Amino acid sequence: MSQIRTVITGTGSYIPPNIKTNRDFIDQPFFGEDHEPIVTPPNEIVDKFKDITGIEERRYADADMNTSDMATLAARKAIADSGVDPETLDQIIVAHNFGNVLSNTIQTDALPALSSRVKQSLGIRNPDCVAYDILFGCPGWIQGMIQADAYIKAGIARKCLVIGAETLSRVIDKYDRDSMIFSDGAGATVIEAVEGDETGSGILAASVQSHCVDEAFYLSYGKSNFPGADPDVRYMKMKGRKVYEYAIRNVPLAMKACLDKCGLHVTDVKKFFLHQANEKMDEGFVKALYKLYGLRDVPTDIMPMSIHKFGNSSVATIPTLYDLVKHECFGSHELEPGDIVMFASVGAGMNINAICYRV
Amino acid sequence: MSQIRTVITGTGSYIPPNIKTNRDFIDQPFFGEDHEPIVTPPNEIVDKFKDITGIEERRYADADMNTSDMATLAARKAIADSGVDPETLDQIIVAHNFGNVLSNTIQTDALPALSSRVKQSLGIRNPDCVAYDILFGCPGWIQGMIQADAYIKAGIARKCLVIGAETLSRVIDKYDRDSMIFSDGAGATVIEAVEGDETGSGILAASVQSHCVDEAFYLSYGKSNFPGADPDVRYMKMKGRKVYEYAIRNVPLAMKACLDKCGLHVTDVKKFFLHQANEKMDEGFVKALYKLYGLRDVPTDIMPMSIHKFGNSSVATIPTLYDLVKHECFGSHELEPGDIVMFASVGAGMNINAICYRV
Repeated sequence: MSQIRTVITGTGSYIPPNIKTNRDFIDQPFFGEDHEPIVTPPNEIVDKFKDITGIEERRYADADMNTSDMATLAARKAIADSGVDPETLDQIIVAHNFGNVLSNTIQTDALPALSSRVKQSLGIRNPDCVAYDILFGCPGWIQGMIQADAYIKAGIARKCLVIGAETLSRVIDKYDRDSMIFSDGAGATVIEAVEGDETGSGILAASVQSHCVDEAFYLSYGKSNFPGADPDVRYMKMKGRKVYEYAIRNVPLAMKACLDKCGLHVTDVKKFFLHQANEKMDEGFVKALYKLYGLRDVPTDIMPMSIHKFGNSSVATIPTLYDLVKHECFGSHELEPGDIVMFASVGAGMNINAICYRV
Repeated sequence: MSQIRTVITGTGSYIPPNIKTNRDFIDQPFFGEDHEPIVTPPNEIVDKFKDITGIEERRYADADMNTSDMATLAARKAIADSGVDPETLDQIIVAHNFGNVLSNTIQTDALPALSSRVKQSLGIRNPDCVAYDILFGCPGWIQGMIQADAYIKAGIARKCLVIGAETLSRVIDKYDRDSMIFSDGAGATVIEAVEGDETGSGILAASVQSHCVDEAFYLSYGKSNFPGADPDVRYMKMKGRKVYEYAIRNVPLAMKACLDKCGLHVTDVKKFFLHQANEKMDEGFVKALYKLYGLRDVPTDIMPMSIHKFGNSSVATIPTLYDLVKHECFGSHELEPGDIVMFASVGAGMNINAICYRV
């Protein structure tokens, strides 16, 4: 039976050139939430950090580069990869959480929205190409994909550009050890409505959850850990333990719900593209998902991991990782037409989402 | 023929209690873009302002009230008005452009997204109720409605809460005369999928345009007009003349495109609910729209105007105005079942949109 499917026809990413290694934090004084200095020797701090998260390095944008600039660079590559005429795009959706933050300032600038800036930089004149931003925590890029898929299903769009871009290096509290987790980047996809049969490429199903009663402030803006810091200047803060416990409980269930919706079994999934916030957590997600099917052993090489080199770049993580694997730039990870992959993310809100996709 | 229609089943708004009259600006020194003092006598400044915009008063939120708080208050009223069980909502969409800005600070706080905070304040535990924010300039609430309508058409939602909330009093440059235009507020609607016939209530059509190549920075963040102000602290800035010329050229066309989509004539429209940025501009929109149909005379009382008392409260303006008219709290303006109304807005991006709706 012929049906309209939402197919990824192009991917692109921008990985900032500035590598910041764990060793680069050796001279950084850290303080706890209680504003007391962390007395652990610096070497131990960074070694422990590596053990817990898996992160060895992260990337920071150049001082003159903004979130919308990175979004544009990733978008250009995705457009070139797809071969789409940018003037034929129906929607440009940019997911982020902090807008543009100029280097060495503290204000979010999202006026105009980053999507308007991207559309301007791409030189797209067609007024029917609608540009808007969404805020949905780290799962923003997946949510943009789900929204674009809905527009295609509703018949109000046929071609969309979905971008995740973030410059977390400008909203972190450098006195907080958690600052070492976060990084900068942008990833983009072009998706198009394609007429195909039941076995064709495309989005097969999606699941989304928002938990906000007890969980809303697990990631939030808060004061610096530095004693005597200006209380009116706030930074991204994370209750790491709470996030971990929440995610490990809920993400595998959302992933299974997504598979159930399209009648697939966990063993049908060739690769998992998961948000990269913590290596052990991601391993825990897949292990717990397999366990929901009564399976104890997770196949090797099922989960490409970029966290070691790129840290957590929020909404940019998954589209960047998918772009690298799609273009065979990520070790031995490869994709073939017909492969089933899953995108899944968790982050501020708290929000969780997943997409089942046939390559 | 039976079909699914997106019907507004409840409306609510929050109008802040603090009235700021034009006279309250008499002692405020104003500077031009060139940082030179405006030497016009204060009385003349405010009188001329009134003549140009129609604005006599505007509303400011209490210092301890945030954008997400106002959004929640408007949402509560819309939910009560609709009678919907909040736990059955599928989506909570909050349109804004500046997040929460704490009184006397300069940072946007949208971590977590305002929609997450609203969902928390409403105490909604159902994780399937997805909460996200959109940034789309002043037309954000209409865009949220268009997105919710798409989810209903795509079969992924049946009940949505769409909110527009903004606290512009915290992002204006008080040394800029344009600051007198802007105000605070929140408006909300509950919309539901309703099975009905062709003559039933619901969204009939929508049109959207984004003009970003020449127009993206007509509204943007910029430095204060005050000489010697901190260049790293930025405020909402508007190129008023450019916005006016752009809007008067494009908004009537977008309104006609919306009517054309559902096969209606301009004389079928009972009331126009337009974004309130400038009284003369809104009169110009409707006049130009009528002219597109070869009509010279615009009927009286066709356009409820809140600008005189409420100024421009961004995304909050239209849902607030509709709420007041719907509940017969706005002079002689009344709506009957079957009436055709049009919502239309223009703002940062630049973005324009319109919805044709049968009450």
